[in-house]
Amino acid sequence: MLIGPDGRVHASAQAPTPVGDGPEAVVAAVRVFVRELAGAAEGIVTAAAGVVVPGEVDAAAGIARYSANIGWRDVPLGALLGEDLGVPVVVEHDVRAAGVAEVVLGSARGADDCVIVVIGTGIAAVLVSGGGPVHGATGLAGELGHIPVRPGGEICACGQRGCLETYASAGAIARRYARSGGEPSSAVEIVARLRSDPIADRIWAEAVDALADAVIILTMTMDPSVVVLGGGLAQAGAVLLDPLRAGVAAGLTWRLPPRIEISPLGAKAGRYGAAVLAWRSAGVTDFSAWTLE
Amino acid sequence: MLIGPDGRVHASAQAPTPVGDGPEAVVAAVRVFVRELAGAAEGIVTAAAGVVVPGEVDAAAGIARYSANIGWRDVPLGALLGEDLGVPVVVEHDVRAAGVAEVVLGSARGADDCVIVVIGTGIAAVLVSGGGPVHGATGLAGELGHIPVRPGGEICACGQRGCLETYASAGAIARRYARSGGEPSSAVEIVARLRSDPIADRIWAEAVDALADAVIILTMTMDPSVVVLGGGLAQAGAVLLDPLRAGVAAGLTWRLPPRIEISPLGAKAGRYGAAVLAWRSAGVTDFSAWTLE
Repeated sequence: MLIGPDGRVHASAQAPTPVGDGPEAVVAAVRVFVRELAGAAEGIVTAAAGVVVPGEVDAAAGIARYSANIGWRDVPLGALLGEDLGVPVVVEHDVRAAGVAEVVLGSARGADDCVIVVIGTGIAAVLVSGGGPVHGATGLAGELGHIPVRPGGEICACGQRGCLETYASAGAIARRYARSGGEPSSAVEIVARLRSDPIADRIWAEAVDALADAVIILTMTMDPSVVVLGGGLAQAGAVLLDPLRAGVAAGLTWRLPPRIEISPLGAKAGRYGAAVLAWRSAGVTDFSAWTLE
Repeated sequence: MLIGPDGRVHASAQAPTPVGDGPEAVVAAVRVFVRELAGAAEGIVTAAAGVVVPGEVDAAAGIARYSANIGWRDVPLGALLGEDLGVPVVVEHDVRAAGVAEVVLGSARGADDCVIVVIGTGIAAVLVSGGGPVHGATGLAGELGHIPVRPGGEICACGQRGCLETYASAGAIARRYARSGGEPSSAVEIVARLRSDPIADRIWAEAVDALADAVIILTMTMDPSVVVLGGGLAQAGAVLLDPLRAGVAAGLTWRLPPRIEISPLGAKAGRYGAAVLAWRSAGVTDFSAWTLE
């Protein structure tokens, strides 16, 4: 997205990530995409750019440290894209950027203590305490996808057992559905079959149960006022939200649950976060006029 | 303890809590105890006092809101003790005060991101992120004892199932040991029987496993540099620390574990925390000279 300092969207584009062709192909595709987007709107001069990527990110150095899915290591994305565009480039973790967007203009607007859970191919979270993000001692806070919610359970790609991500990510839902005898399908297709396909119902219920336990754990440890669900899977809407709210309330016997909301930003959260971070790097501090388009 | 601004201990005393006699008796006993302690050292003039209590505490108002164990509600301890002593009195939650002591002069000295887990009759934690404590939206952060580490597991006094506290607190260890056919014993007695009593070994291993999962969860979400174990059960030492470190390392396949240490403050953590908070309220900011006595 090409966004002005007032939040106005001047251009928008999407392109698939050529993951199968190796990390060099991804870097090359990102460079072409960003150059084209920067020139997509007549008369618009780019002041700064934000790019968000999965995996480990060294935001201060502008380096994409590692991504298992993409396969890259230590890619100096900030420097490469900065050369292409001739403007400062902010590099950030996709989920942290989405968290920034939720607090600045989404469901957690103004919340000092909140959690943003992003459910897509994997699961990650942004924890906000006292108005600031929790980074952790080594910058690895928020790895919610790898908390053991089913101790001794199914093995995760990370090598641990019973990780949240192994039950409740879009990838896990698709994999567990196919393994249970369902026709190979995406998580979105499986959600569309709820209430007419018992396998879909069971796999979905197990995913929601695991998510409910994760939200209970976050509530007990962090005590957020609101938990925002983002990422592709959150677009499932009420079939996710209703049983999740019920599961969390049922598991919290002696305290009120936090609000649980679906992100109004959806898949755009990462992009809006990138835009907010880019404009912040260019000196913009007031985003109160930004609305969602 | 009567402590100077330089950390020197001028007097120290202990008294049992008359819990069986109702909340009024506890308040009366605390008032007598504090008055006597304040006058216990010749020539020492009290500048401020800190008192730490379990349960819910409104530190800003100096009020002990609620304790299930003591049975009190809304006791204005700060005002009552302030009248008795004629100096400002800080009231704080015992576990939060212990956390303050660990960061100021214990195993977490200087750590900006750390977790203090206090294991006694129950289990609670102080989470520190970016140098400051995590309070949460309603002041209820750190309720580590009630995270569901064994989903669908044993029922907890709180009404939830599979809570950490149901497996790993001193009370749970004693209860589970007796229920498994062991002679009714305290957790300390059970620890003394390790390697000679198979029931003790099994109950202890299950407690340590549950704690390891909790530390893994905290590591994934908060990314602390150090996890400090305090409270009575932490005094078990190596029989706790060695298998816990091994369990956490085994469960973290793709990242290094945080340091895990036993609190050097032990049962004195809460008292040192009360002293630090009292001196802070009197304007002292430098505690670098304080050592443990």
